[in-house]
Amino acid sequence: KSHTPSGYRKSCWYEEEIEENLRWSFALNSILHTAATQYQDIALLDTKPFGKALVIDGKLQSAEVDEFIYHECLVHPPLLHHPNPKTVFIMGGGEGSTAREILRHFSVEKCVMCDIDEEVVEFCKSYLVSNREAFCDPRLELVINDARAELISRKECYDVIIGDLADPIEGGPCYKLYTKSFYEFTIKSRLNPCGIFVTQAGPAGIFSHTEVFSCIYNTLRQVFKYVVPYSAHIPSYADTWGWIMASDSPLLLSAEELDLRMKQRIEGENRYLDGKTFSSASTLSKAVRNTLENETHVYTEGTARFIYGHGKHNQE
Amino acid sequence: KSHTPSGYRKSCWYEEEIEENLRWSFALNSILHTAATQYQDIALLDTKPFGKALVIDGKLQSAEVDEFIYHECLVHPPLLHHPNPKTVFIMGGGEGSTAREILRHFSVEKCVMCDIDEEVVEFCKSYLVSNREAFCDPRLELVINDARAELISRKECYDVIIGDLADPIEGGPCYKLYTKSFYEFTIKSRLNPCGIFVTQAGPAGIFSHTEVFSCIYNTLRQVFKYVVPYSAHIPSYADTWGWIMASDSPLLLSAEELDLRMKQRIEGENRYLDGKTFSSASTLSKAVRNTLENETHVYTEGTARFIYGHGKHNQE
Amino acid sequence: KSHTPSGYRKSCWYEEEIEENLRWSFALNSILHTAATQYQDIALLDTKPFGKALVIDGKLQSAEVDEFIYHECLVHPPLLHHPNPKTVFIMGGGEGSTAREILRHFSVEKCVMCDIDEEVVEFCKSYLVSNREAFCDPRLELVINDARAELISRKECYDVIIGDLADPIEGGPCYKLYTKSFYEFTIKSRLNPCGIFVTQAGPAGIFSHTEVFSCIYNTLRQVFKYVVPYSAHIPSYADTWGWIMASDSPLLLSAEELDLRMKQRIEGENRYLDGKTFSSASTLSKAVRNTLENETHVYTEGTARFIYGHGKHNQE
Amino acid sequence: KSHTPSGYRKSCWYEEEIEENLRWSFALNSILHTAATQYQDIALLDTKPFGKALVIDGKLQSAEVDEFIYHECLVHPPLLHHPNPKTVFIMGGGEGSTAREILRHFSVEKCVMCDIDEEVVEFCKSYLVSNREAFCDPRLELVINDARAELISRKECYDVIIGDLADPIEGGPCYKLYTKSFYEFTIKSRLNPCGIFVTQAGPAGIFSHTEVFSCIYNTLRQVFKYVVPYSAHIPSYADTWGWIMASDSPLLLSAEELDLRMKQRIEGENRYLDGKTFSSASTLSKAVRNTLENETHVYTEGTARFIYGHGKHNQE
Repeated sequence: KSHTPSGYRKSCWYEEEIEENLRWSFALNSILHTAATQYQDIALLDTKPFGKALVIDGKLQSAEVDEFIYHECLVHPPLLHHPNPKTVFIMGGGEGSTAREILRHFSVEKCVMCDIDEEVVEFCKSYLVSNREAFCDPRLELVINDARAELISRKECYDVIIGDLADPIEGGPCYKLYTKSFYEFTIKSRLNPCGIFVTQAGPAGIFSHTEVFSCIYNTLRQVFKYVVPYSAHIPSYADTWGWIMASDSPLLLSAEELDLRMKQRIEGENRYLDGKTFSSASTLSKAVRNTLENETHVYTEGTARFIYGHGKHNQE
Repeated sequence: KSHTPSGYRKSCWYEEEIEENLRWSFALNSILHTAATQYQDIALLDTKPFGKALVIDGKLQSAEVDEFIYHECLVHPPLLHHPNPKTVFIMGGGEGSTAREILRHFSVEKCVMCDIDEEVVEFCKSYLVSNREAFCDPRLELVINDARAELISRKECYDVIIGDLADPIEGGPCYKLYTKSFYEFTIKSRLNPCGIFVTQAGPAGIFSHTEVFSCIYNTLRQVFKYVVPYSAHIPSYADTWGWIMASDSPLLLSAEELDLRMKQRIEGENRYLDGKTFSSASTLSKAVRNTLENETHVYTEGTARFIYGHGKHNQE
Repeated sequence: KSHTPSGYRKSCWYEEEIEENLRWSFALNSILHTAATQYQDIALLDTKPFGKALVIDGKLQSAEVDEFIYHECLVHPPLLHHPNPKTVFIMGGGEGSTAREILRHFSVEKCVMCDIDEEVVEFCKSYLVSNREAFCDPRLELVINDARAELISRKECYDVIIGDLADPIEGGPCYKLYTKSFYEFTIKSRLNPCGIFVTQAGPAGIFSHTEVFSCIYNTLRQVFKYVVPYSAHIPSYADTWGWIMASDSPLLLSAEELDLRMKQRIEGENRYLDGKTFSSASTLSKAVRNTLENETHVYTEGTARFIYGHGKHNQE
Repeated sequence: KSHTPSGYRKSCWYEEEIEENLRWSFALNSILHTAATQYQDIALLDTKPFGKALVIDGKLQSAEVDEFIYHECLVHPPLLHHPNPKTVFIMGGGEGSTAREILRHFSVEKCVMCDIDEEVVEFCKSYLVSNREAFCDPRLELVINDARAELISRKECYDVIIGDLADPIEGGPCYKLYTKSFYEFTIKSRLNPCGIFVTQAGPAGIFSHTEVFSCIYNTLRQVFKYVVPYSAHIPSYADTWGWIMASDSPLLLSAEELDLRMKQRIEGENRYLDGKTFSSASTLSKAVRNTLENETHVYTEGTARFIYGHGKHNQE
């Protein structure tokens, strides 16, 4: 019954609506696994352009070929800027890649990963081969809980706390983990002296940085003395992504010092980050710098309580 | 990193270019199996709108939820019009569904299925659960060979010969199995007295019937005394499909006689075809009837030799 | 900056979600006009596979190359079955094609077209060239009003009343125009003796006929003595479509009588419909016939009031 | 006939295959103009996410909302690094945006734009409103010719020569304008002392920079003493883009000096580029830096003559 005996096009596609009017589609080799957890839908896809891709609730979380950009940028700047990071707490991070990068640091003695969705963690443990070693590392302590509740309940403090969470969308599951009061009362009280906090901070492109990046930045600078935003283009996200590092100790290392610490402290070699790359990544472009400078919005629980949107970004 | 914590759209799709400017896309549950044989690429997909779908070289071959329309229309009209069909020869049909329908006829003692692609047959045997019984039926003789070579080499004749092949595209693999000389010298000499030939005959919609349906009809009426074209809309094909039945014995049964024979001769009940349905299906609409009446093109090997296209339909 | 200096693919597409999991896409030449009326969004597109296409609220209404199938099937069966149709009332039909087909009947003296959306009517008047003559015909009376209110307010009766409306979706704009009480009290009282009612009746494919086709059929047979359902595959709709004709006078004409009346009564020649085509169209396939036979649901205002869905089909 | 009376999705899309397995799609407001010239197909689309978009041969050339990134990066770094740029020659640039940025420099007395496709230039002149002023500037000399032939035929030299051409794809229209011999014998002999050459240099993302960016870099450093590659993420391209500036005079300005010159020499304010942005843009990330360092391929006509591909990138 076939019409065309040869010369046909790729026919299976993964399609994501990056915005309402913008689509990003990858040809598929296969759909490796799908599952529905209590909190979200998960899929592991084998895509032609970006390799294996983890998709949660219809949004690409990380792709095999370039997840190293996201995870090196999230983990290494705070750990390298810390004089001697021994204990790290990850809020979220169930995929395991954040832990994997942390555990490459020789100094790290304990890494707590606190994710709310046990099934996502189990899914990633089973299927993400490159994180298997990290999941088995005896320095990793895996906790299934709400990250805020867990941090509050714990007595101990950490050298570095890492936010590897969904964006702060009002009404979304993670909004409370981006508010001024959370940073002020929970995060700060769980950081050791010289401790550093870092969070993924949403898209940071020339247009998209106004969605949440600038607000997270402005919220953090209400609370910490030193705040360093930086960004990198991640091909599979079709955008430039942002992270923000914050501390009450100065965050000032030259490219050369960073390179030296990487050599001394990290097992193996980074694929994305070195001193010059971080220096470029933390020099934001004019328009982004200007927005950050002039941002006045602060994430607070009160704001959330009263503005409350329907899955929309808070733009006050 | 997820942006939208809930309320997302289906993200994996099978997409087929029905024509250069027309696309038909099904949301996917999963890609069950893919394989590349010596002749073609095969995939078994689990689609949301049409269930499991067999795709060869980027073209949907049959879908779980409506393949019964195609296969009941291909098989039952010739077998029912024959007084007592005992032996049937299928050219192609590696999927197994054509054999399955044939073997529902109590009168059938032997069914030869001759497909050129062993790997497709093995693939379907393994994965198409609903045809498993047919593949195991002792009345089925499975041959891997070119159908023309096989028919020529065989001495025996058949009550019904069924063409379940790709469309007659010049330069395509099946062109020679639709020519006047093939019908005249090979098919006719392998039909028993009162024998009936039937072939799938490509799309038969109000526009698409001029592609190959009318030419197959005109070629067959050069060779056989009685030729009956009929058609049915198949949702997963996004078109009306055509079949043509031909014989040197009259092909005249009323809806009532067809219903009676179905009851007497076929195991179980048809899902698509009954007497009235066939009567409607064999009453073509005005435009299609007119084209068939006035068609002058005849498929010949000579035509093929000189016009020869690049995977395009022959339109002389 | 271009990467590929030649050999590229069509890049502008119209895409419709026929169902949640099924998409139908046409390559575009251009977007001719778009407008937002009080009630709906309209667009006139120039598509490659189907010519100019009228799209309302993201749903294809009619396409240049095959709208004749829909409109010939809607109009000619009731007008031909009527002994001498002089007056016709169209509920909806703002596109103008229904009026165009009606006005081809020599016997018609008056045709009322009652559409609620003045802007759609103006849009079609301006842009649908093939209906211009019809819009200027002195026998046409154009009324902007709700069809039910208009019919109730009028004293006069009609030989034929035609429902050219959106499907009866609960909560949709046209639900009330498909209920038993509307048929019983409004339609019947506005039909002359021997009057015939016809309505488009939604998709009528092997699967899709259960959505509304069978319910409209069952509702009509509660009210009229003679009810004739029929269907035809419309390529641009990617489905078989249905219409239902109803009257208290018998609706029995042979194919030959229909052909004769077409010749005598209609200006020009039909492109789709002739006697045999109607005979085939009104012989439904087995599964559809069975559903219609066994359908028990009746559209009533009460049903609507209590079940009320959100743009979903009523499946009780 | 409409099924869904409300709540539908965007239905017209522009779709580009960035690579064979990667698609980028924009919702469309309208297709403003389309034309076929002697050399290429052009379209001006009104897209929802990126405003008006110029598409040539199925590839997005520039989009209203972010073309300023590409054109500021192409033009200002060479003009600012030059002590006093009076004369500029643009190879290609028919869109007009490159000329527009050049003519913002007070020092510029003459700007030659040499594009081979008169119809593209006329199309852009007519439809790209934001470049109208530039097209009318008396300092602009517009020439329709092959840029190489034009440069060879001219006696005069220029302070800055700008390559605003399609990528160097073997067999493509612009390959010869990226070869070592062209740079050595044509470009160099048409540059004044202290002259600077700049060229767009294709995608420069973490993966895509190996396509042509690294080879253009390596070819230029065979010919010029000072070569500065830089890059920026352009949202509508779904990638990071690259440019390379080359000269026999040193190209060393601090961020502060650049900011000062911008203020003194350029009319109005840049939207993308300032000193810090250029400093970040010209600090490439680790992987890109390594590839550029180790690149050995040089574009030559000989290479082209013998390897010659079919619209594929040269990867030797």
